[in-house]
Amino acid sequence: MTRNRDRHEGPESRRSVGWVKAQTLRLADATNPLPLEIGGSIAPVDVEYETYGTLSPAKDNVVLVCHALSGDAHVAGWDADAEATGRPWRQRKPGWWDAVVGPGKALDTRRYFVVCANVLGGCYGTTGPSSTNPDTGRPYGLDFPMVTVADWVQLQARLLDALGIPSLYAVLGGSLGGQQVIEWALAFPERVRKCIVLAASARLSAQGLGFNAVGRHAVTHDPDFRDGNYYGQSSPDGGLAVARMMAHLTYLSGKGMDDKFGRRIQDGAQAGRGFNIEFQVESYLDYQGRSFVERFDANSYLYITRAMDYYDAALRWGDGDLVKACARIRAQVLVVSFSSDWLYPPEECRQFSMALMRNRIPVNYLNIRSDYGHDAFLVEAETVERLIKGFLTTAPPDTTASRCARKGGCTQC
Amino acid sequence: MTRNRDRHEGPESRRSVGWVKAQTLRLADATNPLPLEIGGSIAPVDVEYETYGTLSPAKDNVVLVCHALSGDAHVAGWDADAEATGRPWRQRKPGWWDAVVGPGKALDTRRYFVVCANVLGGCYGTTGPSSTNPDTGRPYGLDFPMVTVADWVQLQARLLDALGIPSLYAVLGGSLGGQQVIEWALAFPERVRKCIVLAASARLSAQGLGFNAVGRHAVTHDPDFRDGNYYGQSSPDGGLAVARMMAHLTYLSGKGMDDKFGRRIQDGAQAGRGFNIEFQVESYLDYQGRSFVERFDANSYLYITRAMDYYDAALRWGDGDLVKACARIRAQVLVVSFSSDWLYPPEECRQFSMALMRNRIPVNYLNIRSDYGHDAFLVEAETVERLIKGFLTTAPPDTTASRCARKGGCTQC
Repeated sequence: MTRNRDRHEGPESRRSVGWVKAQTLRLADATNPLPLEIGGSIAPVDVEYETYGTLSPAKDNVVLVCHALSGDAHVAGWDADAEATGRPWRQRKPGWWDAVVGPGKALDTRRYFVVCANVLGGCYGTTGPSSTNPDTGRPYGLDFPMVTVADWVQLQARLLDALGIPSLYAVLGGSLGGQQVIEWALAFPERVRKCIVLAASARLSAQGLGFNAVGRHAVTHDPDFRDGNYYGQSSPDGGLAVARMMAHLTYLSGKGMDDKFGRRIQDGAQAGRGFNIEFQVESYLDYQGRSFVERFDANSYLYITRAMDYYDAALRWGDGDLVKACARIRAQVLVVSFSSDWLYPPEECRQFSMALMRNRIPVNYLNIRSDYGHDAFLVEAETVERLIKGFLTTAPPDTTASRCARKGGCTQC
Repeated sequence: MTRNRDRHEGPESRRSVGWVKAQTLRLADATNPLPLEIGGSIAPVDVEYETYGTLSPAKDNVVLVCHALSGDAHVAGWDADAEATGRPWRQRKPGWWDAVVGPGKALDTRRYFVVCANVLGGCYGTTGPSSTNPDTGRPYGLDFPMVTVADWVQLQARLLDALGIPSLYAVLGGSLGGQQVIEWALAFPERVRKCIVLAASARLSAQGLGFNAVGRHAVTHDPDFRDGNYYGQSSPDGGLAVARMMAHLTYLSGKGMDDKFGRRIQDGAQAGRGFNIEFQVESYLDYQGRSFVERFDANSYLYITRAMDYYDAALRWGDGDLVKACARIRAQVLVVSFSSDWLYPPEECRQFSMALMRNRIPVNYLNIRSDYGHDAFLVEAETVERLIKGFLTTAPPDTTASRCARKGGCTQC
């Protein structure tokens, strides 16, 4: 177990993709709006995305990365436009998965053309609740339509179409990004060769729904929320900070927190004084809350957590039966869970893998021992990098040969 | 496993203690203030408490119950003064541990004299932040001094003195109540014969500290909080509701929530509509938040969770060494943890038991299989009742005889 998240390679490093610039494409307009899963459609839709590496002449080297709840399209390298686009925090560190994407890394940019797009409803350049509603000329706010994981994947497919990319060599992501990977495998079975699902299952648990609900409650009951019409005024930072602090607790494990913070008192603080920050863990959570509100829009938090709530692969593709749903999948799949993850617990990731196995889809399932909880998919970068590299460079197994040869069927496969 | 929490016996039932009335005693005044662990003292201090059963002539049948964070002294029976004291919610159900306290129950009121007192800093009649500060004539608010688990136990000892009770046959409680039991065993070793610690350990984990911190953050950042001076005005209900909703998630287990709510949609709701209540789990949490603010004071929530944070038996009595701390204990101890409790996980309860064993203190440790999480100490009433009954009616073992007879010492005990 090695913590790689904080090991930054500078933009000049041989292993960094260096300075990068996001691009934006209009992928839906009045004549070609984007239909939405829950109903209706939306236009215009602009998508901000980044790419790393070079598209091969055969266009067969494309890897799509799907970002998680608070992630973005800035996966690797250093944002050349950080200042110009008002995202100063990007000057302090490279993209969120820089440990995995770059020359010689698992997603080797000398070999693969890596693409990542900001999700619909987010706040990083792709159309979202802070964008202008063409009907009113003002920001959408809560008039933004409800969007889903399926919509995100449809929009990513439009992006690939626009870039002239017929199919993906691989699609991968962790957490909510992993759910997009599952949806890719289901919605476009012929367009995906390999899928990597990290720390994600086919649907969120009741406990996960509960935490999302409390986080949204904190946002929507902040007096500055004003039914989502807070743009140009004070924003519901207090509520959003509480939501983020709480969510952060679900990203860590009890053991991991005991190891990292224990009951240690913050430097300069004195225990027993009252309600200010005293324990180190309080300081950590406070920082997470404060830094998040600087870079995230409260309305986007509502929409994205709701999309996370709604995603249910079995319901969408198999009338509630996950095995039936997975029958559509044609890709080779790698599923990785982490032992101390309680947001997407190993057992639920295993259930998804089992549904694949029952359809004789080639799947590798690994449960990695880690004390980093859900965050392990980012923190255990060395392990994850090794697994991705191995999976992407191995030819898919001959699924015909792997079929069970027992006469009269087998209860185990 | 039987859920007994919602099985109410009416006040006329043979197994109910019937109608009860709380009593109040002034236990500290200007001439005899209560010294506080962290420093200073407080006066006056009034304590509201309830008793059930009859004190024996020998005064040897007293059982003290210690309540948890949001509990109170109204342990059993029906509050005859519910309306008069402005606590209408007590008209709907009996005391919080009615399943355990009453004629023929584990704390058999035909045999034991059961006492429970509201904690200092709370909001149920015992002096707290909503009480009048004698220095200003106004409610204390955040001028209320910081109080600790140790202070609560000292005040409970004063109550026993006032009632002429020299010692306790038993003291018991769950969660934060269980931590009071541990402190009783340590602070008054000669005054306690039997201790029952349910779903509690000798200190809160980093994760527990984190959840408390986020809950307090939600309260103190509510605009209605006004630095705690909200009495007579709108109170920070929004923040307190968020704190309670989140805390409730820590009282349940993932498995328990999947069984109870799953991803089911609330009757009358339609999925995919937005940010109102759709899933059953959202409805449940919303109810928990709304009902809590009707009956709890936000400042008390701050003080009590902080006391929970601060309690560390090893630090207080053993320079950080729990085995050394526990050497003081003379009582026979029963420790019960619950397999799916992640607020006070079984492993931490076991560690406390091990510290007792290493001191050759007679201890029974049981980890009960349950999917009810931390709440199991209340929900698994039948199991808990049986354990309490057995433990209270069994003579303590001859500790001399149970000493290890191996020559040269034994590495296992």
